Amino acid sequence: MPPPPKLDRLEASNPMTDSKANPVAGIELGGTKTVVAWGLPDGTIYEEHRFPTTRPDETFATAVAWLRERGMPAGIGIAAFGPVRVNPSAPDFGSMLATPKEGWRGFSMTDALKKAFPGVPLVLDTDVNVALWGENVLGAAQGTSDAVYITIGTGIGAGVLSGGRLVHGALHPEFGHLKVVRAPGDSFKGVCPFHGDCLEGLASGPAIAARWGKAAVDLPPDHPAWDMEAWYLAHGILALLAIVSPAKVIVGGGVSQSSVLHAKIAATLKEAAAGYFGDGDFSKLVVPPQLGQEAGIRGALLLAGRAQP
Amino acid sequence: MPPPPKLDRLEASNPMTDSKANPVAGIELGGTKTVVAWGLPDGTIYEEHRFPTTRPDETFATAVAWLRERGMPAGIGIAAFGPVRVNPSAPDFGSMLATPKEGWRGFSMTDALKKAFPGVPLVLDTDVNVALWGENVLGAAQGTSDAVYITIGTGIGAGVLSGGRLVHGALHPEFGHLKVVRAPGDSFKGVCPFHGDCLEGLASGPAIAARWGKAAVDLPPDHPAWDMEAWYLAHGILALLAIVSPAKVIVGGGVSQSSVLHAKIAATLKEAAAGYFGDGDFSKLVVPPQLGQEAGIRGALLLAGRAQP
Repeated sequence: MPPPPKLDRLEASNPMTDSKANPVAGIELGGTKTVVAWGLPDGTIYEEHRFPTTRPDETFATAVAWLRERGMPAGIGIAAFGPVRVNPSAPDFGSMLATPKEGWRGFSMTDALKKAFPGVPLVLDTDVNVALWGENVLGAAQGTSDAVYITIGTGIGAGVLSGGRLVHGALHPEFGHLKVVRAPGDSFKGVCPFHGDCLEGLASGPAIAARWGKAAVDLPPDHPAWDMEAWYLAHGILALLAIVSPAKVIVGGGVSQSSVLHAKIAATLKEAAAGYFGDGDFSKLVVPPQLGQEAGIRGALLLAGRAQP
Repeated sequence: MPPPPKLDRLEASNPMTDSKANPVAGIELGGTKTVVAWGLPDGTIYEEHRFPTTRPDETFATAVAWLRERGMPAGIGIAAFGPVRVNPSAPDFGSMLATPKEGWRGFSMTDALKKAFPGVPLVLDTDVNVALWGENVLGAAQGTSDAVYITIGTGIGAGVLSGGRLVHGALHPEFGHLKVVRAPGDSFKGVCPFHGDCLEGLASGPAIAARWGKAAVDLPPDHPAWDMEAWYLAHGILALLAIVSPAKVIVGGGVSQSSVLHAKIAATLKEAAAGYFGDGDFSKLVVPPQLGQEAGIRGALLLAGRAQP
């Protein structure tokens, strides 16, 4: 008679608890680069591959070929630039909507993946929502069910977690196009082709470059640009506090890498809130990401392990 | 042999479908008046009783006595002015927080009701959330899982439904204290004691009265006050669209009863959105309530039938 199996071996052979038995795939589709990863549904990355985002068929062919070499994943999580249909019950779930990116409008990411990985469950969300999910499970927004991830780069976007669920809304939220009150003395007309001086028009990377004649990365910490940037972000965050009351607001993206920005936002927020929206210590509310560039792809692996985010 | 029972009688005797077997109680606690109702978890009101909100012990004694005469409800739904702790897992669930209303701070509504109705499940939410719930199930926001209910009176508040769930947030949303961009040429300093010119400071009932020297109800439809009021509400709604993307925004409360306000908001919104946030037909987005003064108390009865809103 063979000896009774040890408990740890029993657990290890249980497909419900042994995540190693079920590797998953993550895809982070950005406007300029794509990342694919092979890993675990707890967000662990075994291997990843980064390559430029080109035409949709070509981009997905590259992603699929790389993933297939690694095997058949138990699930695929996708973080996509948008606008994209993320409602799983919509007939065009997984399709790109009216994006200006050439060739992508109407492309179905889910169709491309279903063909290559028949029967494998797909979970898809917007890039900001997936990055927030990553930071919520593994990073700077752990332990709360109400958080926001703001990214500031070429544009401005935000993912919102409310009551433990990612907010999608009826159409799709467009945080970057929020109207914000002007910083004192600011008369820059803004760069948004639709709204001029919406948040994105006044505080995105291109707005900073147009206003100051230099890219954000070249502006020293004592440059007045950072006070103005903090004003606009603080007022964007004030709107979030008034509407969804997050416990944590992660400010990430290229422009946010200045060492002084988060503290300046917290100080402006304290003044603008005037005793409202919490105990006044906004330095714990406004924080940088902890997962850095990995938030999106690790979030995609986490999503892959879930039927519904 | 008796004739076989008719199908409708069979259904009527099934306790799972016959809500008449299980009457519930609703309590709508306002800053100046309280409404109690005896009815059904589908929102049907059998009887209701309105009385002034006075001291908390007295107010709840009146409510309890009236309800007890009617029997033991299967559940109690409460819509309360705030701020109030609505998280059922918080130790002070059901307690009033830092309200300026004398004697109410720290009062536990749930303790008062548990003593009078031992074992009866209680569900509690903010007045605006409960009114939204009523409008979502029975009124102007039927058929969507993303909607907002804005009330404009002495203050301005909003309830938000996102993905079919009422938004609570980490602290509590304070839509009235949103900062909004100024209407062209407006230099009124605002009446909010904390922020001056936040939305409530510029567009609440007291703000209208202070700005124009007349109460909203006395301003004719062609008065310029309504254009300015529409500007501020449209910009508040723009922030909602940017953050939670509702399919329906109900604008209610005393000030909203002008016949021209909803159309003016929709027109201003179209201009400010500049092609974003939908197909441009905002007249279907911005609507008056359908349940009128009954949204809160019918919402409370609906809540009473649910373990979790």
